[in-house]
Amino acid sequence: VRVSPVRFASTEATTAAKISGDEESEAKKEASAVPAGERKAVASYWGINPSKIAKEDGTEWRWSCFRPWDTYKSNLTIDLKKHHVPTTFLDKVAYWTVKSLRLPTDIFFQRRYGCRAMMLETVAAVPGMVGGMLLHLRSLRRFEPSGGWIRALLEEAENERMHLMTFMEVSQPKWYERALVMAVQGVFFNAYFLGYVISPKFAHRVVGYLEEEAIHSYTEFLKELDKGAIENVPAPAIAIDYWRLPANATLRDVVMVVRADEAHHRDVNHYASDIHYQGQELKGCPAPLDYH
Amino acid sequence: VRVSPVRFASTEATTAAKISGDEESEAKKEASAVPAGERKAVASYWGINPSKIAKEDGTEWRWSCFRPWDTYKSNLTIDLKKHHVPTTFLDKVAYWTVKSLRLPTDIFFQRRYGCRAMMLETVAAVPGMVGGMLLHLRSLRRFEPSGGWIRALLEEAENERMHLMTFMEVSQPKWYERALVMAVQGVFFNAYFLGYVISPKFAHRVVGYLEEEAIHSYTEFLKELDKGAIENVPAPAIAIDYWRLPANATLRDVVMVVRADEAHHRDVNHYASDIHYQGQELKGCPAPLDYH
Ligand SMILES: [Fe+2]
Ligand SMILES: [Fe+2]
Ligand SMILES: [Fe+2]
Ligand SMILES: [Fe+2]
Repeated sequence: VRVSPVRFASTEATTAAKISGDEESEAKKEASAVPAGERKAVASYWGINPSKIAKEDGTEWRWSCFRPWDTYKSNLTIDLKKHHVPTTFLDKVAYWTVKSLRLPTDIFFQRRYGCRAMMLETVAAVPGMVGGMLLHLRSLRRFEPSGGWIRALLEEAENERMHLMTFMEVSQPKWYERALVMAVQGVFFNAYFLGYVISPKFAHRVVGYLEEEAIHSYTEFLKELDKGAIENVPAPAIAIDYWRLPANATLRDVVMVVRADEAHHRDVNHYASDIHYQGQELKGCPAPLDYH
Repeated sequence: VRVSPVRFASTEATTAAKISGDEESEAKKEASAVPAGERKAVASYWGINPSKIAKEDGTEWRWSCFRPWDTYKSNLTIDLKKHHVPTTFLDKVAYWTVKSLRLPTDIFFQRRYGCRAMMLETVAAVPGMVGGMLLHLRSLRRFEPSGGWIRALLEEAENERMHLMTFMEVSQPKWYERALVMAVQGVFFNAYFLGYVISPKFAHRVVGYLEEEAIHSYTEFLKELDKGAIENVPAPAIAIDYWRLPANATLRDVVMVVRADEAHHRDVNHYASDIHYQGQELKGCPAPLDYH
């Protein structure tokens, strides 16, 4: 049995965190989490001071998109080969939908896996957000709890966005890639929204298969790194903090933990689809929280 | 300076939390967080076992919608009187939009504040989700960090949903109230979505004023409780766990902490609007995280 952890996301903790007696202006000036160059002071009487956070080594916490307690050590022992064999008609549609997206993606990116990873993560972060939002609205409408699934799906979306923030450090999007992302997001957001409203069973299955493809794609990325076709540069600082990697971690280590994340997403989404297939509701089956 | 907290939402922690050597079926059977009656076992080979969590006193953690480290002690010292005086045209539109919604609400609910609270929370949980989602999509589209605002707004939405889960325990929605909620959500979700796309400055200001009204409404609720017009029943179990209230807490204590939450939301949203008014972007100003 897990005992309640020491840390609570509490007002108390936040209050205790403030340096006692420091004045507002100073707190604002030093406030972290946005690169110093972009940091702005906003005159405000709302009493909002971003809390200062330090790393274990005493240096300032640099990230505002995640905090120390959102970070984790990845479980690299996860089975990368698991596959849901499509049996029903709907599963087959989901499987072939994903497979048919593979060809144009392969042609477009060829072996530029860094670029491919970056672009695909802009899409990968959409389903969790859409699913989480729809379950949130349903919970409100029906006056019923969510079984933790809202949080689980939003956590997945956030995790995917961190993948993007990481790969952005390694490769820079070109203007036509930016344009493509806008177009793809517009189409995919609406398609997934509609899909999730009509059949969450199908929607989660599609994501399960997308994640299987993601695992494959990151495995290819690793092969290129090992061949030396892609340079194994040092890991970006954001990745070292987010996955608690050693200071000398490289791009290869990053791809390893990202691939493990995708395997976890695969499990969660196939599981969610299974729940629907067995005629049950997500809210009746506790969601896998903190399952990275 | 705040030192990194001990608890990390990590795979390690989750793994350590599992009772070593227990088999999957047993873990699933005992898995907590969904009321025992609704708990279902789903045959799955995805290896997903909801982690078991215990409270400080060793009893089973009952909630899946939030976990011990999401709970907090409310800061009741927050200034309840703060008000943003509308000066610009847009502010005045926001102010009078909210004020004009007050009359029909007053007429519909009269002095039934328990019912009113429950109904209004179904609406209050929408803006944070819409804002968080739109900022998430923008972060993906533009390849840029969010300054923590995605998380801050999603946390607000989650907090409002917990208000709803709490008041649901105190008053039961009638069929026509359920129907009303569906209609209102349909309209409000779309209106706020559009509003946030067109003018986040205006959207956050509207929420700021809505929260000012919420504070007023909960103050009236407290008056009715003190007069004895509404019975001061014991606090629901979910509220005691979520706000770490004493075991003998009452409805009055719950309304007090909920009102403090609304004051925090007021600050966050007026602040977000101020940032836009000062021609800056949210991502450049670190969001108030853990600011309940
Ligand atoms: Fe990813
Ligand atoms: Fe993924
Ligand atoms: Fe609320
Ligand atoms: Fe609120």
